[in-house]
Amino acid sequence: MSVRVPQRILVAPSGFKESLDAVSVAGAIAAGVRRTLPGVRVDIAPIADGGEGTARIIAAAGNGRLHELTVCGPTGEPVRSHWAEVGVGRNRIGVVEMAAAAGLALVPAGQRDPGATTTYGVGQLIVAALDAGVSAILVGCGDSGTCDGGAGALQALGARVSDHDRREIGRGGAELVRAASVDLTGLHPRLREVEMVIAGNPHNVLTGPNGVARVFGPQKGATPAQVDSLAAALDVWADILQRDGLADIDYRQGVGTGASGGLGAGLAAVGGKLRSRFDALLDSGLSGIDLDHRIGKADLVITAEGSIDFQTPRGKVPAEVARRAQLRGVPVVALAGSLGDGAPAVHDVGIGAIASIIAVPMPLSEAVANGEQLLADAAERTMRMILLGAAVSARAGQRKRKKAV
Amino acid sequence: MSVRVPQRILVAPSGFKESLDAVSVAGAIAAGVRRTLPGVRVDIAPIADGGEGTARIIAAAGNGRLHELTVCGPTGEPVRSHWAEVGVGRNRIGVVEMAAAAGLALVPAGQRDPGATTTYGVGQLIVAALDAGVSAILVGCGDSGTCDGGAGALQALGARVSDHDRREIGRGGAELVRAASVDLTGLHPRLREVEMVIAGNPHNVLTGPNGVARVFGPQKGATPAQVDSLAAALDVWADILQRDGLADIDYRQGVGTGASGGLGAGLAAVGGKLRSRFDALLDSGLSGIDLDHRIGKADLVITAEGSIDFQTPRGKVPAEVARRAQLRGVPVVALAGSLGDGAPAVHDVGIGAIASIIAVPMPLSEAVANGEQLLADAAERTMRMILLGAAVSARAGQRKRKKAV
Repeated sequence: MSVRVPQRILVAPSGFKESLDAVSVAGAIAAGVRRTLPGVRVDIAPIADGGEGTARIIAAAGNGRLHELTVCGPTGEPVRSHWAEVGVGRNRIGVVEMAAAAGLALVPAGQRDPGATTTYGVGQLIVAALDAGVSAILVGCGDSGTCDGGAGALQALGARVSDHDRREIGRGGAELVRAASVDLTGLHPRLREVEMVIAGNPHNVLTGPNGVARVFGPQKGATPAQVDSLAAALDVWADILQRDGLADIDYRQGVGTGASGGLGAGLAAVGGKLRSRFDALLDSGLSGIDLDHRIGKADLVITAEGSIDFQTPRGKVPAEVARRAQLRGVPVVALAGSLGDGAPAVHDVGIGAIASIIAVPMPLSEAVANGEQLLADAAERTMRMILLGAAVSARAGQRKRKKAV
Repeated sequence: MSVRVPQRILVAPSGFKESLDAVSVAGAIAAGVRRTLPGVRVDIAPIADGGEGTARIIAAAGNGRLHELTVCGPTGEPVRSHWAEVGVGRNRIGVVEMAAAAGLALVPAGQRDPGATTTYGVGQLIVAALDAGVSAILVGCGDSGTCDGGAGALQALGARVSDHDRREIGRGGAELVRAASVDLTGLHPRLREVEMVIAGNPHNVLTGPNGVARVFGPQKGATPAQVDSLAAALDVWADILQRDGLADIDYRQGVGTGASGGLGAGLAAVGGKLRSRFDALLDSGLSGIDLDHRIGKADLVITAEGSIDFQTPRGKVPAEVARRAQLRGVPVVALAGSLGDGAPAVHDVGIGAIASIIAVPMPLSEAVANGEQLLADAAERTMRMILLGAAVSARAGQRKRKKAV
């Protein structure tokens, strides 16, 4: 029995929160892999989760390009933003990352008030993509700093959100309590021709005890009293969308309606289709990244996350990559900045083996500062261990045959 | 191509300096291995390097037992010590660890003076083994706190070391400058019947610019002036051994003569054979541990060391284990508390893959405090990675065959 060396390796990591984006993580892993196997084909597919970095990651993984522009930020101040374009000819997809226009990171710590922040800039990014002639739009949700039910985005797209006196309401979730109707007659005309998919967490719903104001309001800066008033405002907003919106869905409890402070519900009202984030982000037709096809061509998949722990199996990138690889019988290894409590639970969701990038006792700050080098070194060690495993298997086979003879 | 799981794994680690002895390291690794492969046969062979822990390790690895006794410690104070007996019937070997009677760790920090410390207790251990009727004696050198050329050990064995006035000299290396002769007529009678092997570092020589006083004196507490006088004293001692010693060797520059502050030269003078430490410690006839045979039966060897770095290939336990495994074509993986600078150099000496036990950023103190758990977890992860490597190899083989069809 000879030792078969992997011919093709898919590198499909998440970013490392507050340290390295997924593109850098993938690049570092690929470099380490090539140190051990210079001749191997490495397919680099950094994985976006819909949140911060999604547009850049999809542009990198799908050979796309970024369009930069200035939009209205979450606090009303202008921010430099971008959207990604992937595909060519008639299949040009615009990838809009809500966090690039209304993310929590764009709200200065002292101004975190989800009653005041707006998704207006997200609507501006969608308009820019529509004006550029894309055939489809993918909106990534996650890491939002807003709770305006997508009202700001609708306004930017040409909708008129009015109060009982038919005056347009102001920006921010707190204003929704005054809203009385949405008039969609002025909507951007291309919205009707283009398929728009909203990639969000399906567990997030707009209203009720698990509504987005109660679950995510506090981490966006809302006080308990603000959470109550935001929840009440979204109740008002849900009634309006249910009556005036284009889609025939349950705007209150429908899957993904609560994505990004209710942006999901708002965009659904103008024809956006709510999809589970990885189904949308990893589908060739929607994001230009056909992850399943690329998994199927690999002998090994390497994924990664900043921390692998008991939470990883609950919908994190490595678990999603492993789920798809398991269906195709492809072995998966996961690297992590840190292997936390309960990390071995990932073996139950198809990750065959895990390794930490930490090789000597060191403080977290040192690990963060040297992330790329540590990752490359860990990838090199991991590949050596995998090759050794092949040799061990070959030897065990030889000894068994000898015995049989 | 099916995935062959290893049937038999040899666990052959060093101890982790100042943290875990080799027996504990081996036990923790074995526990982790069994978590991944409950049915695998694990052969546990902690490896001694001649220094601290050698007697206990050989007793553990060779199914032997320890004999405890009180001897004269390096500073003249009594210390509780021990020697190991392995083998049965006519082939009973006494394993004497010099560090158990004259190790640096037995010298309180404030009393570190290699001009005053003695190997007298080492001689007492040898006497105890001779009196117990062993057929051979193995003396492990390393981690010594002495520089007396083995004079103390010879005195305990019945030799008389006299000055020019035929008065017996006192204990400690500084006294040797007064020595004039060694009279071996009173030696323990069984020393002539029993084969005694000294397991030392062959690079250590008694005198000259690379003599043991100059190379190791400072770390044993000698000032520069003391180093000079110790080197002069060992010059005197070398002349005496060359004239009065039983063996026809070069007592000044012969391999291993400088082992443990010159204990090698002293014991050679009463018939001890100087051998390279691993040749002696891992030889079935000398230590009861036939490592080569046990390597040959394994599908995988797991070794370990506290730190793996650029020094590891220079005669450390993992390098020696790997050298022997490489000759037999058995894959070797090494675990370490820390992978330091130059660690990948170990791949050149037959270690196929390395892994750290550190899985999250943490200070050294935390790693030391949780060594066994970290080791077991790392061994579990390593076995999973090795099994995954076997699966990757199998998949690469399948894809290749498909292509060929």
